[in-house]
Amino acid sequence: MGGKVEFLSDFLTKFGAQLQSPTLGFLIGGMVIAALGSKLEIPDAIYKFIVFMLLIKVGLSGGIAIRNSNIVEMLLPALFAVVTGMLIVFIGRYTLAKLPGIRTVDALATAGLFGAVSGSTLAAGITVLEAQEIYYEPWAGALYPFMDIPALVTAIVVASIYTSKKRATEDKDLSKQENLSKQPVAAGEYASKPEYPTTRQEYRSQQRITASGYPRKQAKRVKIWPIVKESLEGSALSALLLGLALGLLTQPESVYEDFYNLLFRGLLSILMLVMGMEAWSRIGELRKVAQWYALYALVAPLLHGFIAFGLGMIAHYATGFSPGGVALLAVIAASSSDISGPPTLRAGIPSANPSAYIGASTAVGTPVAIAVGIPLFIGLAEVLIGN
Amino acid sequence: MGGKVEFLSDFLTKFGAQLQSPTLGFLIGGMVIAALGSKLEIPDAIYKFIVFMLLIKVGLSGGIAIRNSNIVEMLLPALFAVVTGMLIVFIGRYTLAKLPGIRTVDALATAGLFGAVSGSTLAAGITVLEAQEIYYEPWAGALYPFMDIPALVTAIVVASIYTSKKRATEDKDLSKQENLSKQPVAAGEYASKPEYPTTRQEYRSQQRITASGYPRKQAKRVKIWPIVKESLEGSALSALLLGLALGLLTQPESVYEDFYNLLFRGLLSILMLVMGMEAWSRIGELRKVAQWYALYALVAPLLHGFIAFGLGMIAHYATGFSPGGVALLAVIAASSSDISGPPTLRAGIPSANPSAYIGASTAVGTPVAIAVGIPLFIGLAEVLIGN
Amino acid sequence: MGGKVEFLSDFLTKFGAQLQSPTLGFLIGGMVIAALGSKLEIPDAIYKFIVFMLLIKVGLSGGIAIRNSNIVEMLLPALFAVVTGMLIVFIGRYTLAKLPGIRTVDALATAGLFGAVSGSTLAAGITVLEAQEIYYEPWAGALYPFMDIPALVTAIVVASIYTSKKRATEDKDLSKQENLSKQPVAAGEYASKPEYPTTRQEYRSQQRITASGYPRKQAKRVKIWPIVKESLEGSALSALLLGLALGLLTQPESVYEDFYNLLFRGLLSILMLVMGMEAWSRIGELRKVAQWYALYALVAPLLHGFIAFGLGMIAHYATGFSPGGVALLAVIAASSSDISGPPTLRAGIPSANPSAYIGASTAVGTPVAIAVGIPLFIGLAEVLIGN
Repeated sequence: MGGKVEFLSDFLTKFGAQLQSPTLGFLIGGMVIAALGSKLEIPDAIYKFIVFMLLIKVGLSGGIAIRNSNIVEMLLPALFAVVTGMLIVFIGRYTLAKLPGIRTVDALATAGLFGAVSGSTLAAGITVLEAQEIYYEPWAGALYPFMDIPALVTAIVVASIYTSKKRATEDKDLSKQENLSKQPVAAGEYASKPEYPTTRQEYRSQQRITASGYPRKQAKRVKIWPIVKESLEGSALSALLLGLALGLLTQPESVYEDFYNLLFRGLLSILMLVMGMEAWSRIGELRKVAQWYALYALVAPLLHGFIAFGLGMIAHYATGFSPGGVALLAVIAASSSDISGPPTLRAGIPSANPSAYIGASTAVGTPVAIAVGIPLFIGLAEVLIGN
Repeated sequence: MGGKVEFLSDFLTKFGAQLQSPTLGFLIGGMVIAALGSKLEIPDAIYKFIVFMLLIKVGLSGGIAIRNSNIVEMLLPALFAVVTGMLIVFIGRYTLAKLPGIRTVDALATAGLFGAVSGSTLAAGITVLEAQEIYYEPWAGALYPFMDIPALVTAIVVASIYTSKKRATEDKDLSKQENLSKQPVAAGEYASKPEYPTTRQEYRSQQRITASGYPRKQAKRVKIWPIVKESLEGSALSALLLGLALGLLTQPESVYEDFYNLLFRGLLSILMLVMGMEAWSRIGELRKVAQWYALYALVAPLLHGFIAFGLGMIAHYATGFSPGGVALLAVIAASSSDISGPPTLRAGIPSANPSAYIGASTAVGTPVAIAVGIPLFIGLAEVLIGN
Repeated sequence: MGGKVEFLSDFLTKFGAQLQSPTLGFLIGGMVIAALGSKLEIPDAIYKFIVFMLLIKVGLSGGIAIRNSNIVEMLLPALFAVVTGMLIVFIGRYTLAKLPGIRTVDALATAGLFGAVSGSTLAAGITVLEAQEIYYEPWAGALYPFMDIPALVTAIVVASIYTSKKRATEDKDLSKQENLSKQPVAAGEYASKPEYPTTRQEYRSQQRITASGYPRKQAKRVKIWPIVKESLEGSALSALLLGLALGLLTQPESVYEDFYNLLFRGLLSILMLVMGMEAWSRIGELRKVAQWYALYALVAPLLHGFIAFGLGMIAHYATGFSPGGVALLAVIAASSSDISGPPTLRAGIPSANPSAYIGASTAVGTPVAIAVGIPLFIGLAEVLIGN
C-alpha cells in the first residue's frame, strides 16, 4: 500500500516536471504573447525549415531504431504495432469525429496524435518495469516507430481524402443550388468551419488538385489513390519517410547525433511557440466542443492500450512475447505524442486546429497514460500472464 | 607601482584580445566587404530569425540569472540597478541628443547600449576583485539583467515616443505650409535625416500607427501609452521579455544550454557581419558628428559609474551592501554592451545608425570602462568604505 | 604481395564506407524523392543561408590552416599548389569543354571540383604514409587550401568570363540576323542549352552586367577585369574569401569549432538533398555525354597528380621537399572535392548541371584517386627519390 502511494507521488512529480518542461513553457508562452497582442513572428521560410528538420529527425530516429533491432524476432509485435497505429486513427474517425460540432480534420489530427507515441511515456513505462524487475525483450522499446509513423501517415492520408471528398460534394451541392437561384449562397459547414489553406504550399497543392482531375463543378466521385499519392508526396510525409529510409539504409548516426538530434529540442521549442500563438487565435473554436475532446482524451489512452494489450496477448501465445513486452506495447499505444506528432500534423493537416489536438493530448491524454495506463497495463500483464 | 604597470599591461592585453575576437572580426569583415562592393547578402527571413534567437537567449539568460538569485537579499541594489539603467537613457536623451547634428534615435540607441551591460567587462571586474581578495556578495554579478533589460526597453520605448511625436509635429507643420503654398516643400530635418523604415515589419507597424488613431494631418498631441504598448508588443521587446519570463517561470536550462546558448556566439557573428555591412554604408552620416560620439563615449562610462557608485553607497549604509558589491555595481553601470545590445537595438530602433552606437561603444566606451572604470571604482570603494 | 591485397581490400572498405556516408545518402535520397515526385522543398532563403554557412566554413578552415602553418618554409610547395589548382581548371577548359555536346559551364564546374581538394582523400593518403613510416613535412597537409581555393575561384571567374563573352557574341550574331530578316530566330546552342539564371541574385547580377557597360546590341569585345571583379564580389566568392581572411587575420577558432564546423556536416547533408533533387531533374541532359565525363574522371586524377608530382620534384631538388611531401602534393592534386566544391560551385556557377560535376567526382574521380592515385604516387616517390 505504501508502495502504491510512493508510486503515485512519483508519477505526480514526473507530471509536474513535464508541466515545467521548456516544450510546454514555450507553448504557453506563445499563447500568452498572442493574448497580449505581440507582433512577434517567425518568418514562413524559417517555419518550414524547422518543420523539415523536425520531421527528418523523427524519421531518422525511427529508421535507426528499426535498423538496429532484430526485425525477424520482433515481426509479430511490430506488425501488431502497425495495426494498432492505423486502427487508432480509424477509431477516432468514427467516434470523436462523429460527435456534434467536431470538425473532422481536427478529430483526425487528434487521433493521429493519440496514435503517435510519446518517448517520455515509453521511458516512464520502462523505468517502472525495471524498478519492479519485470523482464521485457530488449527490442520492445524499438516497437515505437512501427506505431508512431503509420498512425501519423494514416491520419494525414485520411484527412486528405476526407477534405477532397467534402470539397467534391460541396461543389456538386453548390452547382445544384446555383442552378436554382443566382443569390449568394452560404456554403453551410464549409463557410462556418473553413478548412482554409494556412501555407502557401498547401494553397498551391489545393490548386493543383482542383486543376488536375477534380474540377470543382463536375466531380462526382473522388479517386482515392491519387490523393494517397498526393499525401505521400507532400512535404510533410516526404520528409518523414525520407528520414525513415535514410535511417534504415544508410549510416547517418554521426550527422543524426551532431546535427538533427542536437538541434531537435531547440527547434521544437520554437515550433511550440508558433503553435501556441496559433492555438490562442483558434481556441475560441473549441468553446462548444471542449468537453468532447476531454472525454476522448480520458477514454482513448486506455481503450488504445487495451487493444494493443489484446494483440500483445496473441503474440504471447503465438511466439512467447513476454508479459513485460505486452505491457510495453500497451503503454506505447496508450501514449500520445507531444514530440513527433505536432510538427508532422501541423505540416500534414495544416487546416486542423492545434488547440484541439495539442490541448487534448497535453492536458488530459498524457497524464492519463502515465498515471493510469502504466500501472494498469503492467499490473494486468502480471495478473493475466504471470512472470 | 610595479603592480600598477602590471595591471595596465594586463588590461591592454585583454583589450587587444577583444579586438581580435571573432565578434569584432566579423563586424570589421562586414565593413570591408561592403567597402569592396560585395553582393553578399543574408536573406531577410534569416536575419529576422537570428535576431529572434539572440533576443530569446538574452532574455532567457537574464531570467535564469534572476530566478537563481536571492531576490529579497538583493532587493535594494537590484532596484538601484533598474533606476540606473533607465536614468542612463534619459541622460543620453538630454545630453548627447542635444548636441548639434546628432540624430535623436542614434543618441537614444547609443545611450541604450551604454545602459546595457557587457558580460566581459563584468567578468574583468570580478577577476580584479578576486585577485585583490576583496569580498563581494555572490549575487552581485546577477545584478546585471536588472540594469541591462530596463535600459534597452527604455531606449526603445523613448525612441518610439520620440519618432511618433516628431511625425505628428511635422505633419502639423506640413499641413500649415500646404495651406500657404502648393509648391513642393522640403521637410527640413526630416528630409535630411530620414528615420526611414528598414524592415518590412517596421514599415507595416508605422502604417498601422498612421492608420489607426494618429491620422497624419490632424494629430496635435501624441498619446504615450499606446506607443509604449506598441513598443512592448513589437517583435524585439516581445522576444526579449518572453525569454525573460520563460527563464524566470519555467526551467529552460537544458534547451538554453544545448540550443540558444550553443548557437549564440555563431549567430551573433553573422549579425555582426550584417551590421558591419550596414555600418559601412551609413558611416558617412557620422562625418560631422563623430567627435560628439567620442566625447560621450569617453565621459559616459565614468559618469554612469559614479551614479551607480552613489546609489551603491546608499545601499551600503542602508543594508550593509559590501564595498566590493558597490564597486561591481559601478562597473556594471560603466560598461556598455557589445553582446545583448546590438541585436536588441537593431530590431527595436531600426532607424538608428549602427555605426554610431557600435562605434562609440566598441572603439571608446569599452576600453574606458575596462582600463579606467574598473581600477577607479574598486580603488574608490576601498578608500571611501574600507574593507 | 599479401600486403598489397590487404591494401586493396582496405581501400575497398573505405570506398564502401564512403558510399554509405550520410553525405552521399542525402544526395541519393534527394534524387529518389525527386524521381517519386515529392513536393518537398527547402525555402530559397534557407538554401542561400546554408550555402553562406558552408562557404564561410570552408574559407575559415583554409585560413586557420594557413595561419597555423610556417608559410616561409612551405613557400615553394604552396606556390606550386596554387599553380596546379589554377592549371587544372584551364586543362578542363581546353579538354573536357571541347568534347562534343559538353556545355562549357558544366566542364568548368567539373574541372573546378577536380581542382578542389577532398579532405578524406588527403586523410587516406596521410594514413598510408604513416602506416608505411614514410616521412613527410608536418605542414604538407596544410597545402590543401592553396590548391582548393584558387581552383574554385579560377573556375568561377573563367565561367563568368565565358558566359559574358558568349552572350556578347550571340547578341552580335542576333543583331546581324535581325538585320537580314525579321523572322523569329532560334538562338542555336543558347536556346537548346540555356545558361539560365537559377537564383534571383544571379538574375539581378546578369541584369546589372547587361545594363552597365555591356549593352546587348553593341558589345564587340568583353572586358575581362570587370567580370573578374564581378565574380569576386558575388555572394559565393565573397563568403569564401571573407572566411579565408577572417581565418587568417583574426582568431575565430572558438566560433569556428562551436558553430561553423559544428553545423557543417548537417547543413551539407541538406545541401546534398537539394542538389540530389536538382541533379535528378537535370540528369537527362547528360544522356549523350556521360561517357565523356566518365573518361575525364578516369584520366584527370592521374594527370593532375603527375603534374603536381613533377612540380613537387622541382621543390625536392630546390629546397629538399621530402618524398612523402611530394607524394602528398600529388594526392592533393589527384583528389576532387565532395565537400568544399559543391556548395561553392552551386553558388558560383549556378547554371552548371550538378549531375555532371558531382556525378563525375563521386562515381569515378574519388575512387580512382584513392584506389589508384595514392599507391601510385607514394610508390613513385619511393622509387624516384628514395627515402
